[in-house]
Amino acid sequence: MDYDRYDRIRAVQWQGDHLRLLDQRLLPGEECWINCADAGQITQAIKDLAVRGAPAIGIAAAWGVALAAKQGEPLDEVLTTLRAARPTAVNLMWALDRMKKRIVAGADAAALVREAQAIQDEDLAANRRMGELGAALIRTHSGVLTHCNTGSLATAGFGTALGVIRAGVAMGRIDHVYAGETRPWQQGARLTMWELVRDGISAQLIADSAAAHLMKSGAVQWVIVGADRIAANGDTANKIGTYQLAIAAKYHGVKFMVVAPSSTVDMATGSGEEIEIELRDPAELLSTAGKRTVVEGARAWNPVFDVAPAELIDAIVTERGVIERPNSISMQAMFGW
Amino acid sequence: MDYDRYDRIRAVQWQGDHLRLLDQRLLPGEECWINCADAGQITQAIKDLAVRGAPAIGIAAAWGVALAAKQGEPLDEVLTTLRAARPTAVNLMWALDRMKKRIVAGADAAALVREAQAIQDEDLAANRRMGELGAALIRTHSGVLTHCNTGSLATAGFGTALGVIRAGVAMGRIDHVYAGETRPWQQGARLTMWELVRDGISAQLIADSAAAHLMKSGAVQWVIVGADRIAANGDTANKIGTYQLAIAAKYHGVKFMVVAPSSTVDMATGSGEEIEIELRDPAELLSTAGKRTVVEGARAWNPVFDVAPAELIDAIVTERGVIERPNSISMQAMFGW
Repeated sequence: MDYDRYDRIRAVQWQGDHLRLLDQRLLPGEECWINCADAGQITQAIKDLAVRGAPAIGIAAAWGVALAAKQGEPLDEVLTTLRAARPTAVNLMWALDRMKKRIVAGADAAALVREAQAIQDEDLAANRRMGELGAALIRTHSGVLTHCNTGSLATAGFGTALGVIRAGVAMGRIDHVYAGETRPWQQGARLTMWELVRDGISAQLIADSAAAHLMKSGAVQWVIVGADRIAANGDTANKIGTYQLAIAAKYHGVKFMVVAPSSTVDMATGSGEEIEIELRDPAELLSTAGKRTVVEGARAWNPVFDVAPAELIDAIVTERGVIERPNSISMQAMFGW
Repeated sequence: MDYDRYDRIRAVQWQGDHLRLLDQRLLPGEECWINCADAGQITQAIKDLAVRGAPAIGIAAAWGVALAAKQGEPLDEVLTTLRAARPTAVNLMWALDRMKKRIVAGADAAALVREAQAIQDEDLAANRRMGELGAALIRTHSGVLTHCNTGSLATAGFGTALGVIRAGVAMGRIDHVYAGETRPWQQGARLTMWELVRDGISAQLIADSAAAHLMKSGAVQWVIVGADRIAANGDTANKIGTYQLAIAAKYHGVKFMVVAPSSTVDMATGSGEEIEIELRDPAELLSTAGKRTVVEGARAWNPVFDVAPAELIDAIVTERGVIERPNSISMQAMFGW
């Protein structure tokens, strides 16, 4: 399968002495690149959502450690700062743990650069593999709905859920894609639609709240989403709205697929109940494009993730394989020690 | 019960020779009034969403007919044009039918002005009554979630779902209100929060997609929404997103209340399957505040209503009374001829 037509975006680029990041806050209006000259700037880019998407955050953080090593910074401090940049994404912890293991083993800066490059390369390969595995579950002439952005922008390339969609389109199984806007950051509207239009994939944007009505119309057979953390029982934390989609999918008999690299699986977290949900600034809901849209004095509640319980998930796809109707036993069989 | 503290907004005001409308597109940033000098301007205001909310649309249309009569316009033509302004809201048809009945009976312009005033006055009285009936269903110290705007702005005053919330707050039964943003027009963010903050009611805005996560937290005991059309079996068409809320509420054991004047009930429509769902311009999803936010070439699907089936509704509240767990039989008993 030749996927290259569907894989032309690289949002995280190592430049030898700095990291180049496509600023996802400005897309699709502007394609601006941020040159991060040190780990502090990478931490800030993660915090500010200039780079986002669980795998991309992990990759950027790994490069942050490598860059700090090259510059002789105290690596323990750098690891701590990077780790605190976003609390929910487990890939960040996973990538930093992997870098730390190399540091403890005495790796020099060059070896840490190689390790970061390996993390990035393996992510791309995992996405290609997940694309094939996930698309194989989908019948021809299907419509699918996705949420947030899980594409090349969110990963080393190709994408997780959007990788499955790309593979499904390339294999002739998916005819049409619906993307939810994904308030308040509009990752679906701004980023996923940008990727889909660039790739010439037949797609339409919907309001997040139109998903159930869409499912009722019969136009979608699968909801396909990424993950920020998958617990040991299959419960999956992902962008706010994922849980609602999973409930509506079950109600309509629409299938629900989670696609994420195995680094997203956190076997130390027993269930979704234990996952910390990041609350972000209410201002994200009170203003749009820098302009106040809600009356002064108004308050908001802005959780940016939620948890879809395993009972609502039909398939978890990682590069290691597919788990259908996940539970503690099947998760342990694939991801246990 | 003294509700006046919670009822200070009048968005549709008859001025003797023209109709004054609070332009809901500009709130909360600007409080601008539109002076409609003839029925054509009222039709345009309904089409453009300067006036919105099913009861308010019906009231504005009734004033359009009265104004046309005063100005000697051909009333049949005016009725046809007004009727076509918004297809889903049955109150519009109901108000125009009521005006037409008076016209057929030979009413003069003065009588038609009195009829429009009666429609407006009865709506306010109905809202006060529904507020009491709906709030009586709610236990003390409850949290509630509402969607879109169903307040004073959407009605003659006080509101339907928001009227129940106002009454519930006044009666000490509701401690806290959550309002969904209601994409793409943001009626919840712009209008409902404006009303809640003006009334000093404890409230927070949420992204539409955060509703299920909110319900899981246990913070809300009721979802309370308005209606644009209620079919003979209790199926309810309302703002896009209502259906999704009803599904999520059922999944969590959160109660679901529909509040609307009896003029919203359409016994000639057997079920929700027969209700025409208005599709609006995809541009509403592709741009924000006049600025393109989605990549050029992107398409969107923009249904602005959906249908919550009766099986997901715990109570329909009209000024005639409460129907719990509505179905064709209980609906017929209250609304049949």
